[in-house]
Amino acid sequence: MASIITVNLPQHSYDIMIVPGSLGRLGEYMANLKLGNKVLLISNPIIFKHYGQKVINSLESEGFKVAHQILPAGEQYKNPNSIQKIYDVALANHLERSSTMIALGGGVIGDMTGFASATWLRGIHFIQVPTSLLAMVDAAIGGKTGVNHVQGKNLIGAFHQPDLVLIDPYILRTLPSREFRAGMAEIIKYGIIWDTELFARLEKSKNLSQLWHIKSELMDFILQYSCQAKVDIVSKDEKETGLRTILNYGHTIGHAVESLTGYTQLTHGEATAIGMFAAGEIAIKLGMWTKENSQRQNALIEKAGLKTKLPDSLNISKIIDALQKDKKVKEGKVRFILPTQIGGVEITDRVPTTAIYEVLSSMRTRD
Amino acid sequence: MASIITVNLPQHSYDIMIVPGSLGRLGEYMANLKLGNKVLLISNPIIFKHYGQKVINSLESEGFKVAHQILPAGEQYKNPNSIQKIYDVALANHLERSSTMIALGGGVIGDMTGFASATWLRGIHFIQVPTSLLAMVDAAIGGKTGVNHVQGKNLIGAFHQPDLVLIDPYILRTLPSREFRAGMAEIIKYGIIWDTELFARLEKSKNLSQLWHIKSELMDFILQYSCQAKVDIVSKDEKETGLRTILNYGHTIGHAVESLTGYTQLTHGEATAIGMFAAGEIAIKLGMWTKENSQRQNALIEKAGLKTKLPDSLNISKIIDALQKDKKVKEGKVRFILPTQIGGVEITDRVPTTAIYEVLSSMRTRD
Ligand SMILES: NC(=O)c1ccc[n+]([C@@H]2O[C@H](COP(=O)([O-])OP(=O)(O)OC[C@H]3O[C@@H](n4cnc5c(N)ncnc54)[C@H](O)[C@@H]3O)[C@@H](O)[C@H]2O)c1
Ligand SMILES: NC(=O)c1ccc[n+]([C@@H]2O[C@H](COP(=O)([O-])OP(=O)(O)OC[C@H]3O[C@@H](n4cnc5c(N)ncnc54)[C@H](O)[C@@H]3O)[C@@H](O)[C@H]2O)c1
Ligand SMILES: [Zn+2]
Ligand SMILES: [Zn+2]
Repeated sequence: MASIITVNLPQHSYDIMIVPGSLGRLGEYMANLKLGNKVLLISNPIIFKHYGQKVINSLESEGFKVAHQILPAGEQYKNPNSIQKIYDVALANHLERSSTMIALGGGVIGDMTGFASATWLRGIHFIQVPTSLLAMVDAAIGGKTGVNHVQGKNLIGAFHQPDLVLIDPYILRTLPSREFRAGMAEIIKYGIIWDTELFARLEKSKNLSQLWHIKSELMDFILQYSCQAKVDIVSKDEKETGLRTILNYGHTIGHAVESLTGYTQLTHGEATAIGMFAAGEIAIKLGMWTKENSQRQNALIEKAGLKTKLPDSLNISKIIDALQKDKKVKEGKVRFILPTQIGGVEITDRVPTTAIYEVLSSMRTRD
Repeated sequence: MASIITVNLPQHSYDIMIVPGSLGRLGEYMANLKLGNKVLLISNPIIFKHYGQKVINSLESEGFKVAHQILPAGEQYKNPNSIQKIYDVALANHLERSSTMIALGGGVIGDMTGFASATWLRGIHFIQVPTSLLAMVDAAIGGKTGVNHVQGKNLIGAFHQPDLVLIDPYILRTLPSREFRAGMAEIIKYGIIWDTELFARLEKSKNLSQLWHIKSELMDFILQYSCQAKVDIVSKDEKETGLRTILNYGHTIGHAVESLTGYTQLTHGEATAIGMFAAGEIAIKLGMWTKENSQRQNALIEKAGLKTKLPDSLNISKIIDALQKDKKVKEGKVRFILPTQIGGVEITDRVPTTAIYEVLSSMRTRD
C-alpha cells in the first residue's frame, strides 16, 4: 500500500509519501523533483550504519553527487555547534541554492538538517527521511526546524518547509521499542484532539506497544491518518498563531515532568502520556468531558505500554512551579488544552491550581 | 519633510519612514505598531555612544522594557559567534514571540540583528534603524539578513522582513566621509539600473562626496528615491529568483576587486565604483550603450569622490580568475549586468573574456 498526502501551503507545496520499502527509491523520487544535483545527507552513526549506504546508492544511481555528514546521536548534540559542522561540509562541497540537504534520522537529525538548510545561502532545498515513529508522524511535518540553546529547548530555529517527506515504514523495524512508544503517544494524541476514525482504529488493535504487534495494514493506516492530522492542523496555521496550540495536548504537564526529570529519565512520549492522563482528569473535574471517554483514552495509553503514574522522585509543588515558568504562559496564567470529546479539545487558561494539585496528587504511586 | 514608503509583500507589510530628527521618536512609532513591550537593542560602541541613550530614552518613555547588547564594530565580527551573544541576552531578558530586536547601526549590525531576530524563537519582530548611508538605502531594505562563514561572505542567513525601517538623515552627520561615499556608490547604481529621475537630480548637484555639500532637501529626495528603487526591485522578487540580480550592477568586478584586496584596502563602495566604470566600458565595447551615457555615469562617480582606476597591487589575470569563482557563475559563465541606457540594464553571460581583459587593462594607473 502506498499513500501520498499533498501539502498545499500558500507559497509552497510538497508531498508526504508513505510507501513501504521505498527507501531505496529515494533517488528516483528526487529526480522527479528536478532539484540540483548536489546533495548533502545528514545522519547519526546508528541510523547511517543501517540505512546510509542504501540511500547513497539510490541517489548516486540517479546521478546525484552525494556528500554526507554524520553527527553524534542525542538531543544534547542538537545545538549551534552541530549546525556549524553542517555549514562546513556544505561549504567544502560547494552546495548551491539549487542543492538539497537530506535528513536521514529521527527528530533530532530532522530539526538540525532543516535549520541548516533554512539558513545556508538563506535557504536551500530540504528532504526529510524520518526514521523514528515520532519523526514520521510529528517532527518531519510542519516546517518547524531548529536547535537548542544551552539554557532552553528549541529556542533557535526557523520555519522551513521540505520539498519531500519520504516515509518508509520498514525502517521502523530497527527502532528501539521505547522510541516506538514515544511516537505512539503522539498518535494517540491525534486521536483525542482531531480524528475519531484514527481513535477507533487504535481501539480495535490489541497491542500498540511494539511494531511487531501491529499488522502492517494497520501501521500504514496509522501513519497515514496521523500525518494527515498533523498536516490538517499545521496547514490551517502555518506560523503557529492559533490552532497549532492544540498539538500541545498532554504537553503542558508533560513538559514540566520532562524538564524536572532532566530529560533523561523519561522519553518525551512517556512524559506526554502522563500529561494526557492528567489533562483528562482535569477535564473531568471541570465537567468538560466524561469519565467514560477518559477511560477510553487511558486504555489506549496502556495498550501502548505507557505509564500514567508520576515518577516517585517528583514533588508536586515543583511541577506546579514549572508550569508557571513554561514559555506558553501568558500573564501568569497556565494555558491548558483539555479534551471535550474523542476528537475535540478546548484551550483554556481557567484551570484552578487546586484542580491541578488534586489531579497530580492522585497520580503518585505512593501517598 | 517626511516621507513614508509602504512596502507591501504578500504576507507582510511595513513602512520605511524617512523623517529628519526622528530618532528620538522611535518609541512613539513603535508604540503605534502594537508590538510586545520587551525590546533588545543591538549596536556597536561608536554608534551606541552617539545615539544609544537617545533611543533608549525614547523607548522607555513609551513604556518599553529595553535591554541592549553592544557588539564590536567591523565586518570581521559579522559571524555566528556574535549571533550567539545576541541569543544569550535574548534569553537572559526573556524575549518572547511578541518582543522586538532593534538594529541601531550600519549594514553589519542590521544584518546580524535581522538574522538573530529571524531565528530566535523561529522569528520575532525586528526594527531597522540604519545609521550609515549604505544601510539606509540598501542593507536595511529587502529582508536579507545573515552573517559570514569564515570562508565566505553572507553564506549563512535568512529572509526576514522588518516591522519598521526608521531613517533619520541627521544621523549621517557623524558618519565618516569614506563611509558616506560607500553609500553614494549604491545610490548612483540605482540611477543607472532603475531611476532616471534620481539620476537627473544627482547630475544637478555639484558635489556628492560629503553630506555637507548636499542640501538637505536634495538629501531627503535622494534617500526617498533610492529606498523606493530598492523597494520596487525587491518587492517584485522577494526571494531573489530573478529581477534582484540587477542590484548586482557594478558588483561583479567590484566583488572580485574587493576580495583580491582582502576587503580592507577598499570600501565596498569604492570597489563598486570601479565595477560600475568597468561595466560601462564593457557595455560600450559590446555596442550596448553609448560613450555619452558612460561619461554621464562616470561624472557622477567622480562627483562622489570615488575612483575608477584599479589599485596598483592588482593583477588582471587574478581578477579574471576571481570572476570565474564567484558564486553567481553558472556553468562556468560569468554573468554581467550591463547598462543599456540611463535607468536600464540587461543581464548577460556572453561577455568575451578578451573584452573584460581589455577594459581592465585600460583601468590600470600605469602600463
Ligand atoms: N520540528 C517539529 O515540529 C518537532 C516535533 C516534535 C519533536 N521534535 C523534535 O524531535 C526530537 C525528538 O525526535 P525523536 O524522538 O525522533 O528523537 P531522536 O531523533 O533522538 O531519535 C530517537 C532515537 O532513536 C534512534 N533511531 C531513530 N530512528 C531509528 C531507526 N530507524 N533505527 C534505529 N534507531 C533509530 C536515534 O538514533 C535516537 O537514538 C526532539 O529534538 C524534538 O524537539 C520536533
Ligand atoms: N542585507 C542586505 O541586503 C545588504 C545589502 C548591502 C550590504 N549589506 C551588508 O552591509 C554591510 C555593510 O554595511 P555598512 O557599509 O553600513 O558597514 P558598517 O555597518 O560596518 O558601517 C560602516 C562603518 O560606519 C560606522 N558608522 C555607521 N553609522 C555611523 C554613524 N551614523 N556615525 C558614525 N559612524 C557610523 C560603523 O561603526 C562602521 O565602522 C556588509 O556586511 C554587507 O554585507 C547587506
Ligand atoms: Zn510531542
Ligand atoms: Zn553593494
